[in-house]
Amino acid sequence: MDMTNLIGTLAGGLTTIAFIPQVARTWKTGSSRDISLFTYLLFSSGVLLWLIYGIRLQALPIMLANGVTLLLSVSILALKVRDILRTRRRIRAADQRTL
Amino acid sequence: MDMTNLIGTLAGGLTTIAFIPQVARTWKTGSSRDISLFTYLLFSSGVLLWLIYGIRLQALPIMLANGVTLLLSVSILALKVRDILRTRRRIRAADQRTL
Repeated sequence: MDMTNLIGTLAGGLTTIAFIPQVARTWKTGSSRDISLFTYLLFSSGVLLWLIYGIRLQALPIMLANGVTLLLSVSILALKVRDILRTRRRIRAADQRTL
Repeated sequence: MDMTNLIGTLAGGLTTIAFIPQVARTWKTGSSRDISLFTYLLFSSGVLLWLIYGIRLQALPIMLANGVTLLLSVSILALKVRDILRTRRRIRAADQRTL
């Protein structure tokens, strides 16, 4: 593998595994208030398109990297949505207690 | 532009602009407790390598998309580090008050 391809492979590896600590942190704390819902909606949509792009080109590295990134990104998105729904339920319950 | 290139261009656009709402949110609230430092360290390193990869290939779209993403990612990283330092200072100040 030449230097340019080595750099590209390293780049793809890093931007893929980068989201593992975020999934771990959000899973552990259950808190995602500081995480932007819109960022993970846009990012997951973009990574899905990268995956489709890789499938159309039959380019295995693009498929693999984006398949894994999509899983991680959608996990963060799901944890964020769960946190939003929980917070809403808590507010509704508190409202009913004050009635 | 054929369909595959259109999908790739859309994908690059989405995964780049995705980080704008996160920068805006973290800038506005000043809080980044739920954001993983390690995620943005790895992600920024990976995007820097993508940028170098694009420069070596003289591929303008790869350079542009990753240049902008790097700026946004490093901004989030900087806001996170600022928040960590502020929190440390606050804890130190509180410790001194209890002496």
